[in-house]
Amino acid sequence: MPSDRTNQATALLIELPGDGRPMHARLTGAIRAAIAQGRLGPGHLLPSSRALATELGCSRWVVNEAYVQLTAEGRLETRQGSGTRVAAYPAVRTASPPAASADPEPPASHVDLRPGAPDVNGFPAAAWLRSLHHVLTDPAWSPPVFPPAAGAPRLQQTVAAYLRRARGLPVDGDDVIITCGTSHGMAAVAQVLAPAAPGVAVEDPGWFRLREVAAAAGLRTEPVTVDEHGIDVRAISRAGVTAVICAPAHQFPTGALLSPERRRALLAWASRNAATIVEDDYDAEFRYDGRPVGALAGLSRDHVVYLGSVSKTLHPGLRLGWLVPPPALRGALLAAVETSGAGPGIPEQLAFAHFVESGAYDRHLRQMRKTYRQRRDTLLHALHEHHLAVRPDAAPGIAAGLHLTLPLPSRSDEHAVVSRLAGLGVTAIPLSRYTIRPRPPALVLGFGRLPPSRAGWVAGRIAMALQSRNGTQQAERIDDRLV
Amino acid sequence: MPSDRTNQATALLIELPGDGRPMHARLTGAIRAAIAQGRLGPGHLLPSSRALATELGCSRWVVNEAYVQLTAEGRLETRQGSGTRVAAYPAVRTASPPAASADPEPPASHVDLRPGAPDVNGFPAAAWLRSLHHVLTDPAWSPPVFPPAAGAPRLQQTVAAYLRRARGLPVDGDDVIITCGTSHGMAAVAQVLAPAAPGVAVEDPGWFRLREVAAAAGLRTEPVTVDEHGIDVRAISRAGVTAVICAPAHQFPTGALLSPERRRALLAWASRNAATIVEDDYDAEFRYDGRPVGALAGLSRDHVVYLGSVSKTLHPGLRLGWLVPPPALRGALLAAVETSGAGPGIPEQLAFAHFVESGAYDRHLRQMRKTYRQRRDTLLHALHEHHLAVRPDAAPGIAAGLHLTLPLPSRSDEHAVVSRLAGLGVTAIPLSRYTIRPRPPALVLGFGRLPPSRAGWVAGRIAMALQSRNGTQQAERIDDRLV
Repeated sequence: MPSDRTNQATALLIELPGDGRPMHARLTGAIRAAIAQGRLGPGHLLPSSRALATELGCSRWVVNEAYVQLTAEGRLETRQGSGTRVAAYPAVRTASPPAASADPEPPASHVDLRPGAPDVNGFPAAAWLRSLHHVLTDPAWSPPVFPPAAGAPRLQQTVAAYLRRARGLPVDGDDVIITCGTSHGMAAVAQVLAPAAPGVAVEDPGWFRLREVAAAAGLRTEPVTVDEHGIDVRAISRAGVTAVICAPAHQFPTGALLSPERRRALLAWASRNAATIVEDDYDAEFRYDGRPVGALAGLSRDHVVYLGSVSKTLHPGLRLGWLVPPPALRGALLAAVETSGAGPGIPEQLAFAHFVESGAYDRHLRQMRKTYRQRRDTLLHALHEHHLAVRPDAAPGIAAGLHLTLPLPSRSDEHAVVSRLAGLGVTAIPLSRYTIRPRPPALVLGFGRLPPSRAGWVAGRIAMALQSRNGTQQAERIDDRLV
Repeated sequence: MPSDRTNQATALLIELPGDGRPMHARLTGAIRAAIAQGRLGPGHLLPSSRALATELGCSRWVVNEAYVQLTAEGRLETRQGSGTRVAAYPAVRTASPPAASADPEPPASHVDLRPGAPDVNGFPAAAWLRSLHHVLTDPAWSPPVFPPAAGAPRLQQTVAAYLRRARGLPVDGDDVIITCGTSHGMAAVAQVLAPAAPGVAVEDPGWFRLREVAAAAGLRTEPVTVDEHGIDVRAISRAGVTAVICAPAHQFPTGALLSPERRRALLAWASRNAATIVEDDYDAEFRYDGRPVGALAGLSRDHVVYLGSVSKTLHPGLRLGWLVPPPALRGALLAAVETSGAGPGIPEQLAFAHFVESGAYDRHLRQMRKTYRQRRDTLLHALHEHHLAVRPDAAPGIAAGLHLTLPLPSRSDEHAVVSRLAGLGVTAIPLSRYTIRPRPPALVLGFGRLPPSRAGWVAGRIAMALQSRNGTQQAERIDDRLV
């Protein structure tokens, strides 16, 4: 049994003992040890996550987790265009290497501001279990023997009713295809579009996952700038593409809401060019200021593939979502979902249908909207107290969602700030992680999992990281006092 | 809202009113009505399921369900090479058309012998709920915020332990990739193989789903004959392929167990040609006679992609499976699973881990093995009583699994027999549904959902269908008495 592996092909000698811990934890420990022992010195360039994953025969997720963790610890630095390197001043430099079995998780005092996930501690486990219990014991909910490719008919109908009511989409159950989430839906769309539409416009900055999925299917991605009114529709016209992926409700990470004028222009462009708009209805459920905004597909379904999921509203781990195709693409998209061989479990599909029909979903959304709004307000207030003001007019994105973008002084090195912050016990993501072309420096701060009681502390750490010219070493001393 | 649809482009005018029923039921009703009203006469050729699905903007599954249902009712006949037609003597010819809202399900007295599914009434819902409850309430089982592409580490380890113990595979947790099932795993394999291996050998007869998934990724499929010792390895060598998809433990639908000689020859072929064997470990858990047989991947993992799932052991609707790649393909296959954007929900992954670790899975398998063995024995006995003997030496496949293949007299028209059987209240599938090239006529009879109390009745119906030269009309009279 291969319980030990020594990788000899890579310049980076990594030993991953099979000690029962998950692979990402072992990889983190191995790189940490190599840095501590001086085998990897300051400035050493690490392999790309793709190259290292291939070498180790593991997922890029494993490598990315290790890199993110070690960046959070201040041991690594990631700079766009120049890869991931050992930090110039690794936060922890001890004479003896940390034991390989050292805790791979951030210390309890560490605050994780990575965006993209809800507060999973708020997951309504009891209500969810009630729904599962209901559908698994009531014969009226008995699932079909062979799972239909489009999903359980009852869930198709429930999602259609929800989309009519909450997102203004004129659909019925047959129009809805149940998926494992937004990426699964995007993979089906990419497979259908790839032969005919080699080019697809993507938001810059934007969520890299969807453009990666599109690229994996062979689509050429063309970056298009996003400003405070959303994606630049004129630039799409100039990009020579016949498809676009965008998030009109709450663009990630800028938070921009696509303006009414641009919505009309985008639909007109799609209609003129028989093009396809992939609408990622991101964070639509969590809008705090102003009126709710309907989905783009609510204005016209003819050229819009609508993608939704419960990843931000319930838990990314449920892997449950939906896709509403334009009528002309329904057959092709359903065939693509069918040959993907994948879909959520039927009991969970029916449980979600029951969860929505029983009112538990709406209750949960109301509760979480209140929680997140308070977290946003507390963080904004704390940032303001530390003269890190994010005014609503300067950052319209904060009207919704689970994160905000904090502009940095124009000459800041956002990676240095992130590295110092990591040393100070705060994981934040530099805006450049989501950009294709350069943008002014900024931090993306996810507040979905930030308890209000920690907001003041976090804002203080950010102010400290921005003021310090040698924040890392200072942070070490401060952390010593906290531990 | 598009609640009504009239399809004007197809020669087959089908109206699908949006009456709240699932689409397959509405399509079934619409075709049934068209036959009853004489708009579709005896012998009328229906569109292929692909063409009709595209026309209607629905899944092929929807059309196939409708065709299977109407074939079961004796209204349609499917013949290989000549498509699906309205039966020469539709079983039900009433003066007034059946109401559109007529029950689309088979009558209660109808027996469904379609193979490929376990008895979902045996699904251990209470034990499964206990496992779900456990993992959703015990903080020690708290899922990761972002679902890892390879699956929940705890389930990877549990599956590895199960495969070591039950299937003889020398693996640890990192070697296992969790999937939505066999087809999802096959889709990842096909995506990885397609650029380099345009040809893949497939079993003839064989389960069409895996070859469809391979073909959808652009792989050319080459049929290779299966005999009583399993797939013909010499024919694979001659086929000019560098990959093969096969089910060594219990070939579908012949039930053949790949012989030890052929196992060695297959591995030697793969080693010589740097080829890939996709091992579909079908029905391995339900072996009644003789010793359990280990997986091919247990002999050598170097060229074997192992695919497993709970579809036959628990419920196809759970959509939970796993893939064990050869070490050299691990990175590529994990990347393919990752960009598929799909995977089972983390709570269900952890619940299955708990279900196995608690011993509930083994208990369930023991219980179902006993149940299925009894069903097999009862059906064999009943067939024998009606002089439809299936001797173990003539049909080695019945040593395992959930179905058997009943050879028909050499001049029988298996489609006519299936059609007559449908009129007699029994859905069986002709062997030709799974063949690529002609084979002697046979029926595939799934006994997994056949209560022993109905076995004698079923055997009698089969004998009747084989004796009758005009079974359909006779059946109608008999059915009238039964209703």
